[in-house]
Amino acid sequence: MPASIVIAVDAMGGDQGPPLVVAGLAIALERLAGRDVRFLLHGDEALIAAELSKHPSVAAASEVRHTASKIASDEKAAQALRRGKGSSLWNTVESVKTGEAAAAVSGGNTGALMAISKLLLRMTGGLERPALVASWPTIRGVTVVLDVGANVTSDADQLMEFAIMGEAFHGAVHGKPGARASVGLLNVGSEDIKGHEEVREAHRLLREAGLDIDYRGFVEGNDIAMGTVDVVVTDGFTGNVALKTAEGMARFFAMTLRAALTSTLLAKLGTLIASGALKTIRARLDPSSVNGGPLLGLNGVVVKSHGGADAKGFANAVKMAADLAASDYATQIAMNMEKLGEALRSVRAAAEAGS
Amino acid sequence: MPASIVIAVDAMGGDQGPPLVVAGLAIALERLAGRDVRFLLHGDEALIAAELSKHPSVAAASEVRHTASKIASDEKAAQALRRGKGSSLWNTVESVKTGEAAAAVSGGNTGALMAISKLLLRMTGGLERPALVASWPTIRGVTVVLDVGANVTSDADQLMEFAIMGEAFHGAVHGKPGARASVGLLNVGSEDIKGHEEVREAHRLLREAGLDIDYRGFVEGNDIAMGTVDVVVTDGFTGNVALKTAEGMARFFAMTLRAALTSTLLAKLGTLIASGALKTIRARLDPSSVNGGPLLGLNGVVVKSHGGADAKGFANAVKMAADLAASDYATQIAMNMEKLGEALRSVRAAAEAGS
Repeated sequence: MPASIVIAVDAMGGDQGPPLVVAGLAIALERLAGRDVRFLLHGDEALIAAELSKHPSVAAASEVRHTASKIASDEKAAQALRRGKGSSLWNTVESVKTGEAAAAVSGGNTGALMAISKLLLRMTGGLERPALVASWPTIRGVTVVLDVGANVTSDADQLMEFAIMGEAFHGAVHGKPGARASVGLLNVGSEDIKGHEEVREAHRLLREAGLDIDYRGFVEGNDIAMGTVDVVVTDGFTGNVALKTAEGMARFFAMTLRAALTSTLLAKLGTLIASGALKTIRARLDPSSVNGGPLLGLNGVVVKSHGGADAKGFANAVKMAADLAASDYATQIAMNMEKLGEALRSVRAAAEAGS
Repeated sequence: MPASIVIAVDAMGGDQGPPLVVAGLAIALERLAGRDVRFLLHGDEALIAAELSKHPSVAAASEVRHTASKIASDEKAAQALRRGKGSSLWNTVESVKTGEAAAAVSGGNTGALMAISKLLLRMTGGLERPALVASWPTIRGVTVVLDVGANVTSDADQLMEFAIMGEAFHGAVHGKPGARASVGLLNVGSEDIKGHEEVREAHRLLREAGLDIDYRGFVEGNDIAMGTVDVVVTDGFTGNVALKTAEGMARFFAMTLRAALTSTLLAKLGTLIASGALKTIRARLDPSSVNGGPLLGLNGVVVKSHGGADAKGFANAVKMAADLAASDYATQIAMNMEKLGEALRSVRAAAEAGS
């Protein structure tokens, strides 16, 4: 009989804290039915207990670790590192470090989560900084986009690291046997002359470094939803704006669709008849269905939930954590990093020798 | 009887050149029915004549100015400035400078169009660089986003200029009498600590400079389609990625909708009944319906059409040029610039004194 998968959860993270987190865990348990998943909840015991009393299924699967300390959503990462020890976010990540939990989920401060995860879990195979990855539904399947917000600026080296991490993640989580993930670099045009310096330099490195990845060159914003490549690499600022722009568009489309289809009696009748198909569309385009981005590059599974996600969105982040913990994701990522670390080091050495 | 509005057109611009341009003009003429609009077509006379013979309505409204020279889509802006004189793009902009035309439209090289327009038409009221503006349909009307690709990087000063230009443009083109356009700065989070240096500095300037604009602070990607503010300010790289990401999403939604609604016989029947409403949606979400971005900040109307736009999209760019030429847009922009130029200069003087 396999052991339980234990997921550490920051009960205080996100805009709404325990009420939303526990409601999200209830939905996650339904979706994970048949799998032996348990939760280690970090945060204010009294507040958590009040919510657990409303969700007996979650209470039965949970253990609570009390802490009164929490990291504010507007706290700087450096400050969170200095003063965050013992907070709900810190303790959640620490549960993965000690091996008590197989994965951590938090809807808290992204910068703090990144800094604390990096400190406690350390980076894999010589990588510099973690990246937040989004799994984006497209017309051809799933494209992963990174970084979507862990780093505000990224130099050419970091963009190259994102390419390596993204390829490994896509292969482990969304890949098909025998298929190789293709990689593109997000830019404002497909000609070599466009884009700013970091992007052009990363393009050159990816083409010339012999990194053994299927690099396809520049892609543009519209290529994301078209699924032109499996992995889209960009800096965290641009990636975050692109992801949130798409979320806004999804909401706009859903509202426009609803308004148009209830505007006349005839349209209402047609909508009634086609309702099954329309339900499918809404589910597929629901922004919260893509919630839950793992932080890549760490020795351990850490999943960031959007601070403003609803309970269903938080459940998706928990499910993603459970899936990753049960998969050979960690091993595959580590293997890929080791394999590619050597190429990366030689590129850097060459760059330093040349500068 | 009012004089004709003459629009100068770069017949060689865009991925497909004269066939698409002339077909686009035919559609534009239909949409501009009742208005006395004429075209001044710059480019290869023989190629243009062949297309005009297929569209007698365009032929009757057009004059052709032959040039064999054209600027390639991958030519660098500096090179286009040196060698572009006499090209179809150059001559198109020059028609506005000489007063022969009231507006210029080109689907050609964005960097070249910007550099040549800046050289020939000069900037208005002390502004540094033009910005490309997109009019974005939202749930609350139209939000203008700038820059969407005229500049690859933008410092805090330029972002502040974009705020000023965007406010003036929104007021002149999309504004309602008595209503003031609200302005937001695109960032990855709403707290003051987030974002990179340029964005944080622009935020400080916009709050403290007393620029007499309704600045609402940071907005995120999802705020664009939600119409949270009337004007979204960002650098050209981020803005271009956001715009193209949204275009990709629109295509993805249209394809998903079509697939879902033709998946079962029942859904097909419902779709047939609701077809009027669905047609409305498609028209509203069609990415080419937002094609046609004016270059702001110049002494003259220059509209950039997307290089990959179809004939309908090119027609939209032409219609935008005609509307702008007929409006008091140029006067309003110039007035706003003059009024705000003083504030801008004092901010810069203070910044230099302080640094």
